[in-house]
Amino acid sequence: MVKTYEITLHTHGFCDIHDITDTVREKLRESGLKEGMCLVFIPGATAAVTTTEYEPGNVQDYKEFMERLIPSDKPYHHNATWHDGNGFSHLRASLQKASLCVPFKDARLILGTWQNIVVIDFDNRARTRKVVIQFQGE
Amino acid sequence: MVKTYEITLHTHGFCDIHDITDTVREKLRESGLKEGMCLVFIPGATAAVTTTEYEPGNVQDYKEFMERLIPSDKPYHHNATWHDGNGFSHLRASLQKASLCVPFKDARLILGTWQNIVVIDFDNRARTRKVVIQFQGE
Amino acid sequence: MVKTYEITLHTHGFCDIHDITDTVREKLRESGLKEGMCLVFIPGATAAVTTTEYEPGNVQDYKEFMERLIPSDKPYHHNATWHDGNGFSHLRASLQKASLCVPFKDARLILGTWQNIVVIDFDNRARTRKVVIQFQGE
Repeated sequence: MVKTYEITLHTHGFCDIHDITDTVREKLRESGLKEGMCLVFIPGATAAVTTTEYEPGNVQDYKEFMERLIPSDKPYHHNATWHDGNGFSHLRASLQKASLCVPFKDARLILGTWQNIVVIDFDNRARTRKVVIQFQGE
Repeated sequence: MVKTYEITLHTHGFCDIHDITDTVREKLRESGLKEGMCLVFIPGATAAVTTTEYEPGNVQDYKEFMERLIPSDKPYHHNATWHDGNGFSHLRASLQKASLCVPFKDARLILGTWQNIVVIDFDNRARTRKVVIQFQGE
Repeated sequence: MVKTYEITLHTHGFCDIHDITDTVREKLRESGLKEGMCLVFIPGATAAVTTTEYEPGNVQDYKEFMERLIPSDKPYHHNATWHDGNGFSHLRASLQKASLCVPFKDARLILGTWQNIVVIDFDNRARTRKVVIQFQGE
């Protein structure tokens, strides 16, 4: 059985990290499914999904790491195409990737104690984002 | 229900990026499935799958980023093992990863407007690649 | 049909890489499933799953690459929160990600010849890790 949900996030861009773990848990309850996998997917080319300990120090570390890895203030060829200045956002999103799968059993997500599901918006402006939460199982 | 397809790509290596979005859409139509998830997987240890805006500037940015992150002209221990000189390809592939999942509903992939599914061949030579496109759902 | 297994790994941390390919194959046989996808997921915020050629040179390259990318001896804000000194482990795990999906058909994993499924423990101490191996299909 498949249950597909869509949620909306208001994001600020520039590596804005949103913890959606509780929302995924709510949707799992709503689905009524007991065992299977949850796909979390972000439609869009400048955002990504992963897991992390959602704690201010760690969140700050991630932002600083990404700024060091793929600087926002360097020139990118993509910026010459559209002049929207978000070439760095695209690279970050492709690397961090748009999909994440999390297993569930006994109607509960199997996650580590400090492991949160997060959506990261890498764009260079505020966005209204759709996030797909899809459960498949029995 | 599960439907598994395999497609063939002729790649040039060295971060050769192929947009397979239209092919995935064709296979979804062929599957007849309406709602579920699509797994795109590349068998092989020197290639990966992700999403990106498939636009020449962005593609060029990605190649330059990967060359900076994991240079092709540095020595790697792997090269001492097989002498095939693709140690950098392995690191890039492990980081970027071989699997991607994309949800579909109403018989349509749920993707952002500018979000393409791409296979990236990181090897240091031309290859004939198999890519697995598997749909699961109802 | 869904079959969920949990295995235990004793890991040493500091980018300790474990090849679990044979275990995943065993569990697939045990499941009796013929066609579908295998989700490998590591609960926890300081470990990840990916594929690589499990060969000593390549394993060493990966460790050196991660040390260069996200050094273990730099200060991290996360360390100020918990004083457990594993801020670098969290960043590496979030980037490399906790989930991987591998397709199977005719009761066999579809993997490249040199492509191994690996769990990487990035923590800064020995751990006993649970890894979830879940098959979904028919």
